[in-house]
Amino acid sequence: MGYRYEVYLAGAEPAQNGCVNGAGEGSDIFPRSLLKQLDWADYADKFRPAITAEQPGDGLLVRPLQKEDYDKGFLQLLGQLTEVGDISREDFLKRYEAMTACPSTYYPVVVEDEVKGQVVGAATLVIEQKFIHHCAVRGRLEDVVVSDDYRGKQLGKLLIAVITLLAKRLHCYKITLDCKDVMIPFYSKMGYTNEAGRANYMTIRYD
Amino acid sequence: MGYRYEVYLAGAEPAQNGCVNGAGEGSDIFPRSLLKQLDWADYADKFRPAITAEQPGDGLLVRPLQKEDYDKGFLQLLGQLTEVGDISREDFLKRYEAMTACPSTYYPVVVEDEVKGQVVGAATLVIEQKFIHHCAVRGRLEDVVVSDDYRGKQLGKLLIAVITLLAKRLHCYKITLDCKDVMIPFYSKMGYTNEAGRANYMTIRYD
Ligand SMILES: CC(C)(COP(=O)(O)OP(=O)(O)OC[C@H]1O[C@@H](n2cnc3c(N)ncnc32)[C@H](O)[C@@H]1OP(=O)(O)O)[C@@H](O)C(=O)NCCC(=O)NCCS
Ligand SMILES: CC(C)(COP(=O)(O)OP(=O)(O)OC[C@H]1O[C@@H](n2cnc3c(N)ncnc32)[C@H](O)[C@@H]1OP(=O)(O)O)[C@@H](O)C(=O)NCCC(=O)NCCS
Repeated sequence: MGYRYEVYLAGAEPAQNGCVNGAGEGSDIFPRSLLKQLDWADYADKFRPAITAEQPGDGLLVRPLQKEDYDKGFLQLLGQLTEVGDISREDFLKRYEAMTACPSTYYPVVVEDEVKGQVVGAATLVIEQKFIHHCAVRGRLEDVVVSDDYRGKQLGKLLIAVITLLAKRLHCYKITLDCKDVMIPFYSKMGYTNEAGRANYMTIRYD
Repeated sequence: MGYRYEVYLAGAEPAQNGCVNGAGEGSDIFPRSLLKQLDWADYADKFRPAITAEQPGDGLLVRPLQKEDYDKGFLQLLGQLTEVGDISREDFLKRYEAMTACPSTYYPVVVEDEVKGQVVGAATLVIEQKFIHHCAVRGRLEDVVVSDDYRGKQLGKLLIAVITLLAKRLHCYKITLDCKDVMIPFYSKMGYTNEAGRANYMTIRYD
């Protein structure tokens, strides 16, 4: 396509490679402050014990994807969702940069086990800009996965809540997802519905 | 969010407001040359009489959305698909610019009746960047609509073919769509399938 671009993100500093632990916000792919602005009231009854993005549990941290997650098992985690393949650091960083080059579009969220320095959960909000509905934006929940050893601790539900509340915070008029039929009960629990007469989803795969 | 950005699109010149007819490529939202690079072999048997993006029929032109389409009924056309609302020229141009600010993401295609200077059909390819599948990209077919008076002339099928071939040309590993159940036969004709066990689609609407 031959696109060239330069992008300045106010509120998201350029990568500081000196960042040694998960708490540094240096290479956050979107402003972490957004995760503090979510209204958890909608989900108060969904978690026993109560957890939120700010208090996900001992030793855990919910935050934006960072460049350093290449070394924290992010891609290996995605490998538990689907085929990922062998992605070099360079290719990972290229994709990361290509995402940040699209303003207000990609919001990949991870759960880090700070003790182990490993990414143990992930989900992404992707925002699409529309002309319809007064130039609205809509959200999509993509690529939800929790690492084997960490399943059954509400982290899947937590990630879904974070993404869903983030979409609301970013003024999406709706958020949607497609999933295997077996996952319908899981997402139903979190408020997603198969709308009558329009819950269907079609695909063409190339080669 | 406080994002600031500058974007240079090689191959897509800045808007030339002197453009008076649909043939000018001045404010094309993506490089029009892409529409000449589609491989119509896949769709040869779908059209009687044969039409393509380059030969859509007398007086018709298939091209990228332009800024000038604000005055050619583009938003009124979308109003035949769903609620659009009263969008000022300024808001339209802002959304157009916000789309171009996301490199290689938004590909809205229109059919213009060049005799009337009216947009009579539209559909959009939206591309999402992934980490999975070797940092793949996937396509989505969005907002397909053909104007009342122009229905039944294969333009709906033509738009779907254009978007589907464009997604292939842009190396998407798949393209998907969600639609009302009544539209399944229409999209099936064009090669889309409800994949067994994963043809379902869930929604949360905000307020
Ligand atoms: C799906 C997944 C993200 C759930 O993560 P998790 O952290 O174990 O989920 P939670 O602990 O938050 O459990 C949420 C609830 O859903 C239920 N649940 C979990 N997996 C489920 C499944 N495959 N089918 C149905 N229900 C499921 C749990 O029992 C739990 O119910 P409860 O709150 O009533 O006890 C995780 O199993 C996973 O990563 N799977 C592989 C990747 C995948 O399939 N992702 C989804 C793609 S659409
Ligand atoms: C759906 C729409 C785009 C079709 O456009 P069109 O230009 O009339 O379609 P075509 O002339 O290419 O017709 C394609 C085929 O689908 C069939 N078809 C058209 N509309 C259909 C419908 N609503 N349900 C089932 N089949 C339909 C036609 O009969 C034709 O079949 P054929 O080739 O075997 O004769 C148009 O009717 C429209 O804009 N509708 C309102 C908006 C909308 O619903 N968009 C789709 C949102 S998912």
